Amino acid sequence: MSRDIVFKKMATELGVEFTDQIRAIPKYEVAIEDDGKLWLSGTLPRAGGMIAVQGHVGSEVSIEEAKRAARICVLRALAIVRQSVGTLDRIRRVLRMTVYVNSAPGFTEQSEVADAASEILYALLAPNGGHTRTSVGVAQLPKNGSVELDMVVALGERDALSSTF
Amino acid sequence: MSRDIVFKKMATELGVEFTDQIRAIPKYEVAIEDDGKLWLSGTLPRAGGMIAVQGHVGSEVSIEEAKRAARICVLRALAIVRQSVGTLDRIRRVLRMTVYVNSAPGFTEQSEVADAASEILYALLAPNGGHTRTSVGVAQLPKNGSVELDMVVALGERDALSSTF
Amino acid sequence: MSRDIVFKKMATELGVEFTDQIRAIPKYEVAIEDDGKLWLSGTLPRAGGMIAVQGHVGSEVSIEEAKRAARICVLRALAIVRQSVGTLDRIRRVLRMTVYVNSAPGFTEQSEVADAASEILYALLAPNGGHTRTSVGVAQLPKNGSVELDMVVALGERDALSSTF
Repeated sequence: MSRDIVFKKMATELGVEFTDQIRAIPKYEVAIEDDGKLWLSGTLPRAGGMIAVQGHVGSEVSIEEAKRAARICVLRALAIVRQSVGTLDRIRRVLRMTVYVNSAPGFTEQSEVADAASEILYALLAPNGGHTRTSVGVAQLPKNGSVELDMVVALGERDALSSTF
Repeated sequence: MSRDIVFKKMATELGVEFTDQIRAIPKYEVAIEDDGKLWLSGTLPRAGGMIAVQGHVGSEVSIEEAKRAARICVLRALAIVRQSVGTLDRIRRVLRMTVYVNSAPGFTEQSEVADAASEILYALLAPNGGHTRTSVGVAQLPKNGSVELDMVVALGERDALSSTF
Repeated sequence: MSRDIVFKKMATELGVEFTDQIRAIPKYEVAIEDDGKLWLSGTLPRAGGMIAVQGHVGSEVSIEEAKRAARICVLRALAIVRQSVGTLDRIRRVLRMTVYVNSAPGFTEQSEVADAASEILYALLAPNGGHTRTSVGVAQLPKNGSVELDMVVALGERDALSSTF
């Protein structure tokens, strides 16, 4: 089954949809393709024009809610890949994902939150869902989002890739 | 008008100048060129040997001061590009800018601070000023700087680029 | 002397060894090689299955202990390079190291902590030990590690490199 169809199922299950064009304010871009790579700006757990999960994880926000935030972030990043290059089938590899978790004092399970995003990449991009990852706990995030993440993605040609899958 | 001339005007307006060679302490480099890209170390709002804006944004430091810090950081980064490759005209694209804002509890306008840096890239590198960006709120920064940012820049050949502009 | 031998001496001096295969949990990878670069996941100061240095730097953890944490992190990252590409001799350049320091309020010596990691790269990869670096102070880190760092490494062919040294 095409990655794009699985993506839509996952988004529906999570209760989010990415129907509109995702734009940054005019001062920067959500993604830039250069030299076979797609660089993605940081994504917040934004769905339907709102930040779906806000606040510090470990106090105002539970780890389960934080994982939901991470899932929305990664699907939103993938939605940006789709609108940038047409289809998730052009992803050869996710080279880097950096996950910033808005962390309450004493909260040290940033890796567990990031796992929720990693699991989606793993499932959706199998057998090439492996990626490198860094997760850290930050003091504050824009719009009080609970999670923010960015990525660098290696692209391939669609024809060359389809023979791999 | 050459980007380098506009850069100097912008720096003068901001009350900073970058006349000396910018160096890291001998243990690392301010920039490394490799495979058509220039990787830049994190820059603080340093001008004239001092950190121009220090402290947590949202308590000790106003958002206006934080924007000034972001502008100094990005001009300093561009000064490093100039000393590394000779001219800003060799910038093909800023692939990534990560902006770390030294944030007081409850401060969530990291994007607005980062916009000040993005606006400079947009104006100076037009029509290719678009870039990807991540902004986060960190607990502390080196030397108590209010903002720190780093970049990855795609370079082009000067001749090839000049025909684009 | 081969970098790999120096690496082992350094690890022994620091009281750590990296004998087992270093793995990420199955959802991501410790490193990915792509297009002549090796992207490394964030490493914690983990040795012998434990996090060797835990807690906030500047309160629970001294700067000396934090430097030890940074040294363990960078050696662990280099151990991952070795297991990924066979030998440290394939490192052409470290393009980027980002150092996250788990920082107590008021602690602003993140650069000094990161220097401990930079010094190892400088010594071990001489004369090509120069690298770009960003160091920031974060609120919390996974497993309460005191330092986390990640890297992007440019690789070369072993034969081509050996003539340089």
